[in-house]
Amino acid sequence: MEKERETLQSWKERVGHELDIVVAFWLEHSHDQEHGGFFTCLGRDGQVYDDLKYVWLQGRQVWMYCRLYRKLERFRRPELLNAAKAAGGEFLLRYARVAPPAKKCAFVLTRDGRPVKVQRTIFSECFYTMAMNELWRVTGDAQYQSEAVEMMDQIVHWVREDPSGLGRPQLPGAPASESMAVPMVLLSLVEQLGEADEELAGSYAELGDWCAGRILRHVQRGGQAVLENVSEDGEELSGCLGRHQNPGHALEAGWFLLRHTIRRGDPKLRAHIIDKFLLLPFRSGWDPDHGGLFYFQDADGLCPTQLEWAMKLWWPHSEAMIAFLMGYSESGDSALLKIFYQVAEYTFRRFRDPEYGEWFGYLNREGKVALTIKGGPFKGCFHVPRCLAMCEEMLSDLLSRLAPASAPAAALSARSPPADPARRGAE
Amino acid sequence: MEKERETLQSWKERVGHELDIVVAFWLEHSHDQEHGGFFTCLGRDGQVYDDLKYVWLQGRQVWMYCRLYRKLERFRRPELLNAAKAAGGEFLLRYARVAPPAKKCAFVLTRDGRPVKVQRTIFSECFYTMAMNELWRVTGDAQYQSEAVEMMDQIVHWVREDPSGLGRPQLPGAPASESMAVPMVLLSLVEQLGEADEELAGSYAELGDWCAGRILRHVQRGGQAVLENVSEDGEELSGCLGRHQNPGHALEAGWFLLRHTIRRGDPKLRAHIIDKFLLLPFRSGWDPDHGGLFYFQDADGLCPTQLEWAMKLWWPHSEAMIAFLMGYSESGDSALLKIFYQVAEYTFRRFRDPEYGEWFGYLNREGKVALTIKGGPFKGCFHVPRCLAMCEEMLSDLLSRLAPASAPAAALSARSPPADPARRGAE
Repeated sequence: MEKERETLQSWKERVGHELDIVVAFWLEHSHDQEHGGFFTCLGRDGQVYDDLKYVWLQGRQVWMYCRLYRKLERFRRPELLNAAKAAGGEFLLRYARVAPPAKKCAFVLTRDGRPVKVQRTIFSECFYTMAMNELWRVTGDAQYQSEAVEMMDQIVHWVREDPSGLGRPQLPGAPASESMAVPMVLLSLVEQLGEADEELAGSYAELGDWCAGRILRHVQRGGQAVLENVSEDGEELSGCLGRHQNPGHALEAGWFLLRHTIRRGDPKLRAHIIDKFLLLPFRSGWDPDHGGLFYFQDADGLCPTQLEWAMKLWWPHSEAMIAFLMGYSESGDSALLKIFYQVAEYTFRRFRDPEYGEWFGYLNREGKVALTIKGGPFKGCFHVPRCLAMCEEMLSDLLSRLAPASAPAAALSARSPPADPARRGAE
Repeated sequence: MEKERETLQSWKERVGHELDIVVAFWLEHSHDQEHGGFFTCLGRDGQVYDDLKYVWLQGRQVWMYCRLYRKLERFRRPELLNAAKAAGGEFLLRYARVAPPAKKCAFVLTRDGRPVKVQRTIFSECFYTMAMNELWRVTGDAQYQSEAVEMMDQIVHWVREDPSGLGRPQLPGAPASESMAVPMVLLSLVEQLGEADEELAGSYAELGDWCAGRILRHVQRGGQAVLENVSEDGEELSGCLGRHQNPGHALEAGWFLLRHTIRRGDPKLRAHIIDKFLLLPFRSGWDPDHGGLFYFQDADGLCPTQLEWAMKLWWPHSEAMIAFLMGYSESGDSALLKIFYQVAEYTFRRFRDPEYGEWFGYLNREGKVALTIKGGPFKGCFHVPRCLAMCEEMLSDLLSRLAPASAPAAALSARSPPADPARRGAE
């Protein structure tokens, strides 16, 4: 017991220290003092190698700054709040939408906010919504919340009523398929908007259940595989599209679903989620030769067609750390804690850059750094600090729940009530 | 001299033998007897792992079969001609266009020909045109030629007059840029349609010069770099887009331009092309540690953002083999022959699969097979057999031009007339 406490304590310190370094990196290198918004194309040492502004990452960085400000005492600093509001929030409000008042957002903007590319998906809009809601939470400014709620309505309309506003052509050979990303990101928005807001939580409750149900349909082949894409009817699709697997994404869905079960109070579902969205993708996705999670796999064990399939990316590892620590925290199953340690050891050893701070994003199959960039079109101030902040909080909770050295181990069992349910459900 | 003849002869035999194996692979595994068209998603042993039909690769395989049938005596076999006509050509005529009589073609079709995806580019249409023109050459059926010429008119209209039919949104932040691929593929069509056709060659002469001029504008930074993308005015673009380099593509452009100079008779331009499009990309693009050509580079030596940047792909190596052998064949500069041998040795050692035939397409930085597939969404029956057939023909020419052992080496110099100019200019 004392050894367990020591190990948890030591990881809490490592994770907290790492979070400080990571946040300092973005504070130092990513702020555009001239045009607002954040640079995310940062080289190993933080130098800006491209000044394009990716809307996903603008929204995520605003969200991250606000969340840190709101949740962790030591980050309640004006520089984070001001950057989130004046740099990020203002930039998004001004430039994210391609043709206001229409809601469609760009995927990438020039440094001064002119649209370069638009994706025919909902993701820019989702990260816009997350940013606005979190800005409202830290500032109390109602304009942000109305932006968030109106955009959420639009997203739900696109997903559940009529996708035609996204501009995707309907081609007769394209199967009506569902990417797991869509119900996943919607479920995360349900949690985001419903936090400590009974009215919104109530009005999105049915949507949350719908999202969870949709995600669960991606468990296929008699419970033996999580597939990224299924048909509109929840069946396996043919070909590579149908067999496509993304272990890190399944693990991320796993902790989104765990949070959903916490909110809905459903321990039976929890066991299913741990089995199918945590243990299954980890067992099939962990590289037995070199360690680390493969990026993509084929459910039949065939060679994926994506060139990067065997690379080890930072975000599946961040998501795995969150998922296994949360799984342990909720179930008390020490096998999950063991996997958390295994993933965290690999991740800290391989992705961290002790010289310049932040993490490398892209390793080759053998775990060597393949790209030295710290940020780019898809990597910003999000997965790493979110993982570290959430792990720090979960480790604190676990430590506070650990009985003194003499108490029975059952204190950590599934039946022991969390120290602060509201707080755990909310992060 | 005798040693040189022996080396050339031995490579001619290796290349010819390899071509037989590669063609046999596609003949055995890729024909869809039920729906027509070609499967291109083939595993290591030729098994179909996905039945989608990529229009680029349908057109290229038709072209390749016809070209082999037309140019190499031992491939004048009914099974190639019938597959090109009945399977490939018929499938393209029926299904390639999304909404006939409009010209826009799909990027990928279902096995039975329903469109799955459409790209907002000209490439499907270009490979359709190549296929149709070559079908006309082997069959004499005028329908194919009118398809080719009408599609060519449409492509030229999209490129030089009005791109709006491609469906690309015009966004205020998107720089008006030119990808080198566009004038390259157009230049190859000028050569394709103009072969042994004085009237068409004449009517496309200005277009060919325009394409060559456009490609030459991609030599930037005082002649020190070939950049994939430049502005509409022929200037370097900012950011990653502007610094993006693709050594294999520059080498391919190099041999397209060499062929252009042969047709136009411009030896001064030839030296420039060899310097800028052959030697420059080879020197910067060849991996000094592990051999092979990097897939992507950044002109400032920064880390590219593409995950696959350091991988070694089959097609840049096929293109390099063609480019250096052609460069030597035209200039007599033995340094180019030496590079041909270097690239060919690497390519034959690393990409060939002696067990099941055809080549692997994707190696990691160290030269180990990263994807075991033989075909996929971008690899079909094209780059490998085109390279082998062209190299076989060039090696034959070189051998026939080699004087008997006692004659002076000058027989191979730039000024010695080719053995059969019409034939060399035409392949």
